[in-house]
Amino acid sequence: MGLKRTTINDLAAKLKISKSTISKAIKGYPDVSEKTRKKILKLAKKLNYKPNSIASSLRTHQTKTIGVIVPSVVHDFFSKVIDGIIQEAENNNYLVIILQSGEQADLEEKQLNLLKNKQVDGILLSVSNETGVKERLNKVLEKGIPVVLFDKIIKSFDCSKVIIDDKKAAYDAVCYLIHKGYKRIAHFGGVLTAQNSIDRFLGYKQALIDNNIPYNPDLVYVNPNNDDINDGYLNAQKMLKEHTNIDAVFAITDLIAIGVYKYFNKINIKIPEDIAVFGFSNWLVSSVVTPKMSTVNQPSFEMGKKATEILIDEIKKMNNDIEFSFQKVVLPTSLIIREST
Amino acid sequence: MGLKRTTINDLAAKLKISKSTISKAIKGYPDVSEKTRKKILKLAKKLNYKPNSIASSLRTHQTKTIGVIVPSVVHDFFSKVIDGIIQEAENNNYLVIILQSGEQADLEEKQLNLLKNKQVDGILLSVSNETGVKERLNKVLEKGIPVVLFDKIIKSFDCSKVIIDDKKAAYDAVCYLIHKGYKRIAHFGGVLTAQNSIDRFLGYKQALIDNNIPYNPDLVYVNPNNDDINDGYLNAQKMLKEHTNIDAVFAITDLIAIGVYKYFNKINIKIPEDIAVFGFSNWLVSSVVTPKMSTVNQPSFEMGKKATEILIDEIKKMNNDIEFSFQKVVLPTSLIIREST
Repeated sequence: MGLKRTTINDLAAKLKISKSTISKAIKGYPDVSEKTRKKILKLAKKLNYKPNSIASSLRTHQTKTIGVIVPSVVHDFFSKVIDGIIQEAENNNYLVIILQSGEQADLEEKQLNLLKNKQVDGILLSVSNETGVKERLNKVLEKGIPVVLFDKIIKSFDCSKVIIDDKKAAYDAVCYLIHKGYKRIAHFGGVLTAQNSIDRFLGYKQALIDNNIPYNPDLVYVNPNNDDINDGYLNAQKMLKEHTNIDAVFAITDLIAIGVYKYFNKINIKIPEDIAVFGFSNWLVSSVVTPKMSTVNQPSFEMGKKATEILIDEIKKMNNDIEFSFQKVVLPTSLIIREST
Repeated sequence: MGLKRTTINDLAAKLKISKSTISKAIKGYPDVSEKTRKKILKLAKKLNYKPNSIASSLRTHQTKTIGVIVPSVVHDFFSKVIDGIIQEAENNNYLVIILQSGEQADLEEKQLNLLKNKQVDGILLSVSNETGVKERLNKVLEKGIPVVLFDKIIKSFDCSKVIIDDKKAAYDAVCYLIHKGYKRIAHFGGVLTAQNSIDRFLGYKQALIDNNIPYNPDLVYVNPNNDDINDGYLNAQKMLKEHTNIDAVFAITDLIAIGVYKYFNKINIKIPEDIAVFGFSNWLVSSVVTPKMSTVNQPSFEMGKKATEILIDEIKKMNNDIEFSFQKVVLPTSLIIREST
């Protein structure tokens, strides 16, 4: 479903009256009968039709600014996404306002309202791990501001989205581990309120099932903060107390995996000889640790660029009364196999 | 020297007339003699005095937006600075527009003009490695927009600045190496057009001189791109072809040092047993490589916060006709000693 404005074509089709007559009636030209004029104005009002003169006036009120909300800018992945956003925006003469939600839904709501009040032309959003922003987003869209969600999305919310297939990426990574001979694979996942945590977990689980390895919930460790090395460290410690036969860890992020590295290093568990480790995101750190870490490459710069391209296109179409449909773009991921598996 | 607006106090002092009389004269109240009024208006015009009513009208035109230009957002240091900027700005109800110069002075100039035209209330700038932006900055300041430079500054440009003492930080790091017994210390520096490259080089040189170690220009290797691991890698290769007795490398950034790690690792040179490595910036990577890297900690979040605090203060003072002086804040650095030295 697309975000549609009523156009003069809609009125013409419904009333079976020519576009020029409709235009004249709305502009108050005398050569349209009063009866026809009333009919046209009634439908125009009902369908909330705004003639192009109003659209043009809206155009002049454009701020040529887009707002971006991400959980944090101090983040290898998001900083590259932002790089893509700023470059694509600048190429189209848009400026970019950046806000950080810090994974707090309340702050995110405040920021969405702030951007609305600042009259940005459109919003790019990667939602926080807390849920329930759908209604807030609905409020933003009521005001006719296009919104594109990227990376961390709300599936049920109707707008354009640019994502990766987290489930497939996780599935591929775990299948790779299984084909390499690993059988007791633990998952260091995230809190299951965030869509990408859910999808990566589901990919892990499906890969086990499809390869006839029984899924064991005891091998799933939740990390309250996906990007906290210490969470990975503590869960590695916990896991080794509870299990003696783990042969691989599939982590939700490279930073969680780095935490695993740190604990294994401390107690002299060799990677990958004793236990293999697979990360997710391809942060710079994953390529410089010893042993170099196998991970999932996420197209970050491309994601920012694509989301911005779609948003600007929607802004332009909306301002010119051109209909458009929401897009869902799934960017491809790839496995980067290094020394840790 | 401060950026000063003429205030009503200046007029009162120069004319030896009360402020209330001056105010009445300018507002056209009848109880001021024509002679006095003429005298007051003449000086007000000469000193370009703008009464508060104009200041208030300027205030209502504030965009409550500040512009930030950094070389790149995909950068551990700058992303933390931006975190500090966005948080401090938001606490003061300002929004932040971010642009990336990509170390290109031409693009930076275009962006400064863009921000001016967008009527941001102030600008935070960390200049590109290319020189010659002083005149461009002067143009921005002519328009009465406060500018605060941070980290990468132009020394000769008159505005508030938030920096670290790069020379002292480098001096401290190299003195530490010398006191640990290292004597043949190479410097992997940056292009000497950037002030922080110059200062880190000067700190290195001074530390040698002060410790009676002859300075040898052959031990200085220039990295065209400070943040390119490959530059460090190639220079490590070059250095070992040209010299056989180097016992330590002091690198301008952690990423250059990581490049050194990579080459040493490849040809089995042990860090620190064969050659020690000292980095600069305390990027996340420096704490997770093996061996963990000694480095200089730069206060990044604090730098962004402080620069924003000063900028917003200057914006407010300028809008309220309050005089202010430019500040130069030097934030303290510290050595983080780990396993690589």
